[in-house]
Amino acid sequence: MALPSGLEIPKEALDAEIKSFFESAPSLKNSDDVGQKFEEFVKKNSLLSGNGRARRVVCVTSGGTTVPLEQRCVRYIDNFSSGHRGAASTEYFLKAGYAVIFLYRRRTCQPYCRSLPDDPLLECLEIVGDSNTQVHQFHSQAVRTAITKTHAVVAEGLLLKLPFTTIFEYLQMLQMVAFTMRNIGPHAMFYLAAAVSDFYVPWTSMVEHKIQSGSGPLDMRLVQVPKMLLVLRKDWAPLSFCISFKLETNSKILLEKADMALSKYKMHMVVANELLSQKEEVVVVTSKEKILVRRNKSLGVDDVESTLIELIVERHSVYVESFDL
Amino acid sequence: MALPSGLEIPKEALDAEIKSFFESAPSLKNSDDVGQKFEEFVKKNSLLSGNGRARRVVCVTSGGTTVPLEQRCVRYIDNFSSGHRGAASTEYFLKAGYAVIFLYRRRTCQPYCRSLPDDPLLECLEIVGDSNTQVHQFHSQAVRTAITKTHAVVAEGLLLKLPFTTIFEYLQMLQMVAFTMRNIGPHAMFYLAAAVSDFYVPWTSMVEHKIQSGSGPLDMRLVQVPKMLLVLRKDWAPLSFCISFKLETNSKILLEKADMALSKYKMHMVVANELLSQKEEVVVVTSKEKILVRRNKSLGVDDVESTLIELIVERHSVYVESFDL
Repeated sequence: MALPSGLEIPKEALDAEIKSFFESAPSLKNSDDVGQKFEEFVKKNSLLSGNGRARRVVCVTSGGTTVPLEQRCVRYIDNFSSGHRGAASTEYFLKAGYAVIFLYRRRTCQPYCRSLPDDPLLECLEIVGDSNTQVHQFHSQAVRTAITKTHAVVAEGLLLKLPFTTIFEYLQMLQMVAFTMRNIGPHAMFYLAAAVSDFYVPWTSMVEHKIQSGSGPLDMRLVQVPKMLLVLRKDWAPLSFCISFKLETNSKILLEKADMALSKYKMHMVVANELLSQKEEVVVVTSKEKILVRRNKSLGVDDVESTLIELIVERHSVYVESFDL
Repeated sequence: MALPSGLEIPKEALDAEIKSFFESAPSLKNSDDVGQKFEEFVKKNSLLSGNGRARRVVCVTSGGTTVPLEQRCVRYIDNFSSGHRGAASTEYFLKAGYAVIFLYRRRTCQPYCRSLPDDPLLECLEIVGDSNTQVHQFHSQAVRTAITKTHAVVAEGLLLKLPFTTIFEYLQMLQMVAFTMRNIGPHAMFYLAAAVSDFYVPWTSMVEHKIQSGSGPLDMRLVQVPKMLLVLRKDWAPLSFCISFKLETNSKILLEKADMALSKYKMHMVVANELLSQKEEVVVVTSKEKILVRRNKSLGVDDVESTLIELIVERHSVYVESFDL
């Protein structure tokens, strides 16, 4: 029998909750194909590269998950996230030599596309003469960078992008990635920047049809999504280096919540963000310290992710080396 | 004192609900600018054009509205809608000589862009040689059409596009359009294809900060959004030709609900769609008949909107002429 090990609920009960979550979830489309993609990607990148070392692989999750309220879904609860942090971080991980599995919410921000306008095709292109399509001068550098860099890293097999929408899709894909990543032990990293729903309606207790209006207020009961972070750490990929995110709107409780997440889910690092200041600064919380990471314009980079990923890569190296010894 | 006039709630109570909705809503950003854009657009297009007639103006609403669950919003309820119907219908209204105010949910489908892939910039463009950006052969026709047609109708002042996200933004903008459209009487049309939230959390009773997980299930009570369609018809723009949409997942109750909407909100037409078959067929419900409109591939058009808009334009003409007499 598993011991409670400091959890709020015993491990057994959590395992049962998770089993029931996955059993009742609508099954992932093309799950065999997706699984194969993960496997090939991790395998290829973990082989020794030119410098005699295996390439490290990070799974970056990005954007919010949805929680359907009806089986034939018209309404759903969503978690706001532009996906900007995940996209930016992916760029810096690639620059640092990692291979990246980018699990992103459909239609959120993509790596190398941060400086493009909202509706890039209509806003960046113009027709010249009879039929020549060309990029506006103003956007030409941004467009060229987006396309060249994306095509290069995808073609080299260093970036694998896969989209999700619902919490069911997200957690099924995360589990598949984790089962694959466990093969490369400490060389694997999870950088869990996605805004994941805390509450959901279990598929089996969900109404089939659209909820009818017209008869007073709507009362809804949502149950907690089982805490998958802990099983990711303990069971799915126990040697991976794991970083989760804590977003709060109230700065007073932020660090306390980040500390709790660190110890409860046994993360190696928790990145604490406050909604309004998250583009300016974050606090990286580890079991030993709290490190403030600020955007530093004077260094010529205009985002907080540059310094953040540098710090994380450095700590991951120390972690990997501790196994090599 | 206003009489109930067949409503479920007396007009007075509805007016009070609506007043309270708008008073407590966060105010629209740049509302003066937006209002001025609407006014100029309607005024310009309603002046006599070359053929001695004023151009008709339709307000097409498209995509779903969100309902924030927290004031500093992390979570929200969303209504699923790709915006495909609104975008397609806009194209056909423009073809039929209308000027179109396109109120759309940010990042949903745009007119003339229906056949583009999900991530058009990355999927349609390639870099040739050192730095020449060019459109892939496969997408070149679609890209050229999207850009040429969009730029042409915007430049001619026939299409005004404005985005919304929340139910608060949507209803404030709809009211502003209606107040402007009332100046052109029966020449105005509302084609309300947006998937509008039925339930919301009033701003004043909303929690400020992110809802905390960790203490059992989440119980939520949402109240009904006041039925704005009726005041749009009765007070905001009483001579406009109004078409609303009814989407259901259960075909058994669909026509009955469409009939109810027609009589309750005094619409001129209700377009009834069933979630799974909506791309193949819809039923147009009027007080006198129910007309099945099907996608007809043999006519060389691959969508249901082509025939639907033809029917609507014809009925709008009859309506306008009834005032000319």
